Amino acid sequence: MNIVTTMRILGILLMLFSITMMPSILISALYKDGAHVAFITGMAITFITGFVTWLPVRNVRKELRTRDGFLVVVLFWTVLGLFGATPLFLAEHPALSFTDAVFESVSGLSTTGATVIVGLDSLPESILFYRQLLQWLGGMGIIVLAVAILPMLGIGGMQLYRAETPGPVKDNKLTPRITETAKALWYIYLSLTVTCALAYWFAGMSGFDAISHSFATVAIGGFSTHDASIGYFNSPAIELIAVAFMLISAVNFSLHFLAWRERSIRHYLHDPEFRFFIFLISTTVLGTIAVLWLTQTYDIGIAIRHGLFEVVSVATTTGFGVADFSQWPSVLPFTLFLAAFVGGCAGSTGGGMKVIRILLILKQGVREIKRLVHPSAIIPVKLGGRSVPDRVIEAVWGFFSVYLMLFVAMLIGLLATGLDQVTAWSAVGSALNNLGPGLGEVAAHYGNIPDVAKWILIVAMLLGRLEIFTLLVLFTPMFWRR
Amino acid sequence: MNIVTTMRILGILLMLFSITMMPSILISALYKDGAHVAFITGMAITFITGFVTWLPVRNVRKELRTRDGFLVVVLFWTVLGLFGATPLFLAEHPALSFTDAVFESVSGLSTTGATVIVGLDSLPESILFYRQLLQWLGGMGIIVLAVAILPMLGIGGMQLYRAETPGPVKDNKLTPRITETAKALWYIYLSLTVTCALAYWFAGMSGFDAISHSFATVAIGGFSTHDASIGYFNSPAIELIAVAFMLISAVNFSLHFLAWRERSIRHYLHDPEFRFFIFLISTTVLGTIAVLWLTQTYDIGIAIRHGLFEVVSVATTTGFGVADFSQWPSVLPFTLFLAAFVGGCAGSTGGGMKVIRILLILKQGVREIKRLVHPSAIIPVKLGGRSVPDRVIEAVWGFFSVYLMLFVAMLIGLLATGLDQVTAWSAVGSALNNLGPGLGEVAAHYGNIPDVAKWILIVAMLLGRLEIFTLLVLFTPMFWRR
Ligand SMILES: [K+]
Ligand SMILES: [K+]
Repeated sequence: MNIVTTMRILGILLMLFSITMMPSILISALYKDGAHVAFITGMAITFITGFVTWLPVRNVRKELRTRDGFLVVVLFWTVLGLFGATPLFLAEHPALSFTDAVFESVSGLSTTGATVIVGLDSLPESILFYRQLLQWLGGMGIIVLAVAILPMLGIGGMQLYRAETPGPVKDNKLTPRITETAKALWYIYLSLTVTCALAYWFAGMSGFDAISHSFATVAIGGFSTHDASIGYFNSPAIELIAVAFMLISAVNFSLHFLAWRERSIRHYLHDPEFRFFIFLISTTVLGTIAVLWLTQTYDIGIAIRHGLFEVVSVATTTGFGVADFSQWPSVLPFTLFLAAFVGGCAGSTGGGMKVIRILLILKQGVREIKRLVHPSAIIPVKLGGRSVPDRVIEAVWGFFSVYLMLFVAMLIGLLATGLDQVTAWSAVGSALNNLGPGLGEVAAHYGNIPDVAKWILIVAMLLGRLEIFTLLVLFTPMFWRR
Repeated sequence: MNIVTTMRILGILLMLFSITMMPSILISALYKDGAHVAFITGMAITFITGFVTWLPVRNVRKELRTRDGFLVVVLFWTVLGLFGATPLFLAEHPALSFTDAVFESVSGLSTTGATVIVGLDSLPESILFYRQLLQWLGGMGIIVLAVAILPMLGIGGMQLYRAETPGPVKDNKLTPRITETAKALWYIYLSLTVTCALAYWFAGMSGFDAISHSFATVAIGGFSTHDASIGYFNSPAIELIAVAFMLISAVNFSLHFLAWRERSIRHYLHDPEFRFFIFLISTTVLGTIAVLWLTQTYDIGIAIRHGLFEVVSVATTTGFGVADFSQWPSVLPFTLFLAAFVGGCAGSTGGGMKVIRILLILKQGVREIKRLVHPSAIIPVKLGGRSVPDRVIEAVWGFFSVYLMLFVAMLIGLLATGLDQVTAWSAVGSALNNLGPGLGEVAAHYGNIPDVAKWILIVAMLLGRLEIFTLLVLFTPMFWRR
C-alpha cells in the first residue's frame, strides 16, 4: 500500500473539507444564531489535522495505482464523516452526544438522511445549512465514485459500465482522466442543483429553504430543514418539482453527460437500466395509489398525490416525506422498502443495490429456467442487445449475496440490542440502502435507539454508500500484502 | 409432453396412494374412533379416480423422457396433496373446511408440519396416524426426488451431485436405474424409521406414539399426536433420540447409502456439505445456549436442553417443539429462522435452501473479494478439493435469487391479507422452507389466518418441496412446446 501518497491525499482532502465549514460561519454571523464558535473550532481542528498530515509528505509525487483507489475512497467517507461531526458535536444547540454527532455527519455525507435530531425547525440556521451541505458534498463524491472509480475497481459488476456504456471513463489510470471526468460530472451536478433551487424558489420556498432542499434533492439525501420535511410546505408544485429532480438524480449521470454533450435524449430511451427503472417506478406508483384508494386510506386525489411522492421518494432512496407511510396498510411500507433495496440507477446519487444489478439477476433467473428445458443450449444473458460477460454476472451475484448477508448480520446485531423486529429490519434496510426513514420506532427519527445500534447503522450507511466491497476489501490480508 | 404416459403414471399413483388409507381404516376399527367412514369414502374416491384415469391408457408403454420427470414429480405432490385431503375433509372430527383439509394434507405430504388443528390430543387415532403417515410418504418421495430426480433434471445446481458425489445415480434414463436406486434408498429410510420407533418406544413412548413420531422424525416433518409436540413427554431421553434422528435425516442419503454399502463412515468426514452442516449446527446451538443463559431466559441446564433441541429441530426444518422459541429474546427466533432458510443437506428429507447451496454462495462471495484485489487472476471455486463448474454455480445463484423473490412476493401476498409483518414473514419462511411453526399469530397453529393466506402458504409449501424450479418450469411456454 502506498501509505505516503495516501497521507498526502488525505491531508489535502481534510484541508479542502475544512473550507466547507466556511459558509456555515457566514450564515451563523448573518443570522446571529450563536453556532459560529462550533464551526470555527471545527474548521480549525479539521484544517490543522489535514495540514499536519500533509506537511511531512507534501513533496512526494507518485502515481496512484488502481488498488490505492479503494483506500482513498474509504478514507473520504470515514475520515470526513468523523471530522464532519466536530461542529455538530461542539454546537450547544442541538446538544448531540459524540455518537449522535457522528451518526448525523455520516448520515449526511453518505446521503442517507437518517436523523437523530427532533426539533429541526428551531435549530440554528448554520447547523441546518451545514447538514444540507454535507449531503450535497456527499452526493458530489458519489457521482465520481460511481461513474469513475467503482467501474475501474471492478466493484460488484460495475466494470460493465467501463466496457459497455459510452460513458466518459474508459481508461485505467486514476489521473488525469478522472479529473476531466469529474469536472464534467460536477458541472452537471451543479447545474441540476441550481435549476432545482430556482424551481423550489419560484414555487414558493424561501431562498434558504430552496437552496437547502435542492442540496438534499440532487444528492438524494433527504435531510430537511423542517421536522415535517417537504410536507411542511403543503404545496403540490413543490412536491412535483421534488419528484422530478429526485427521478433525474436517480438516473445514471453518464446518461446526463451524453445528453448534454450530444444535445439529445435518445440515450435515455436506449438504456436498458433507465427503461427498467422507469418501469419499476411506474408500476410501484400505480400499485400504491390503487391500494391507498381501495383501502380508503385517502380519497383518490390525495392517494395520487401522496402515493406518487412517497414512492418516488423511497424508491429513489431520497427519503423526503409528505405523509407518514409507515402508517399505511402494512403491505405498502414493505413494498416501498423493497423498492429502496432496488434503489437508483448505477452512476447516480441514489442508494440501494442499483437497478442494473436487479435487472441482471432477473435475467439470470429467467436463463436458469430456459436451461432446465433446454439443458444443452447456450443461452447468453443479454442487455441492450449485447451479451453480458459471465465475469460481470458473477460479480453481480457476489454483490447481491454479500449485500444480503451483511443486511442479515447487522439485523441480528440490532435485534440483539433489544429492538423489535420491524424497527430493526427497517433501520438496517434504510441505512444500508442509504434511504433515511425507517418503520416502527425509527419512523420519525433515530434519537431513541441504543448507541450500539447507532454505530451498527453508521457502519451500514458506509457499507451501502461504498458498495460494500470497497470497504470489505480493506479487511482482507491479501489487500495489504506486497 | 407425453400426456398419455403421464396419465397412466398418475392413475397408478392414485390407486397405490389409496392403499395408504387402509391402515387408518384398521386403526379406526381397532380404536372405534368413528372416523372409518371418512377413510373408506376417501379411499374409494381416490382409487376410482385413479382407475378411471388409468383404464383408457393402460396398454400404452412408452419410455419417459427426462422432461416428463418434471410433470410426474409435480403431480405427485399436487394431486396426492388434493386427494390426501379427502378423509380429513370428510371426517366429522376435526371438522375441517376444504381449505383447511388441503392445507393439512399438503403440509403433511410436503413434510412441512404446519397444522390448522388445535386439540390434537382429543382427535380420533386414525386421523392422527393418517397425518403422520402422510409425512412419512412425503419423506419417501423426497428422498427419491432429491437423490435421483432433481440432479437429473438439473435443478438449482444439483447436477453437482450427478457428476461428483459417488452416489447411486449416474445415469440419464428415468427407468430402470431409478427403481434400483429408489429401492436402496427406501431400505435405508425404512431402517431408520424402525430404529427410531424402537428407540422412542424404549425411552417410554407408547407404541402408537413411537411409530407416529418416528414417521414425522425421519421425514423431517414435525407433525405430532399432541398439541405440546415432543414437549408432551417431558423426557430428556426422548428429546436426545429426536435430536439424533433429526440430524441423521437431514444428511444426504447418498452418504448413508455409501456408509451402508461400504461399511465405513469416512464418506461423511470427507463430504464438504456434511462438515459445513455440522459446523453451522454446532455454532448455532452454542450461540443459542449462550444467549438463553446470559439473558437469564433459563438456567444453564434448561438452556442447554432447550437450546440444543430447538436449534436442531428448526435448523433441520423438522419443527418439533419442547419450548415456545417464539417467546425467546427476539434475536433468537430470527436466527433460528435463518438456520431454517439454510435447511438440511441436499438429498435429505430436510427443507430450506440446502447447506450445499449456501456453502457455494459463500465461497463465491469470497472469490469476488479475491478478484477485486487480483483482477486478472483465475480463481476457481473449490469444493472438496475439486473445482466447481461455473455452470453449477450459476444454477445455484439462479435458485437463490428466485427463492428470495418468491419469498418476497408471497410475503407481500400475506401482508395484503392484513397479517402483521412478523406473522407474515415467518409464515412464508416456514412454509417455503418446509419448517412448520411460525412466529406471532402462527406460533402455535395456522387455524386463524384468512383462507387466501392459507392458499398462498399451500403454494409456498409445494414450491419449497419441489425446489421451486420443478414447479416454475411448468409455467413456461417453452416447456409445453414440441
Ligand atoms: K437518502
Ligand atoms: K417440517
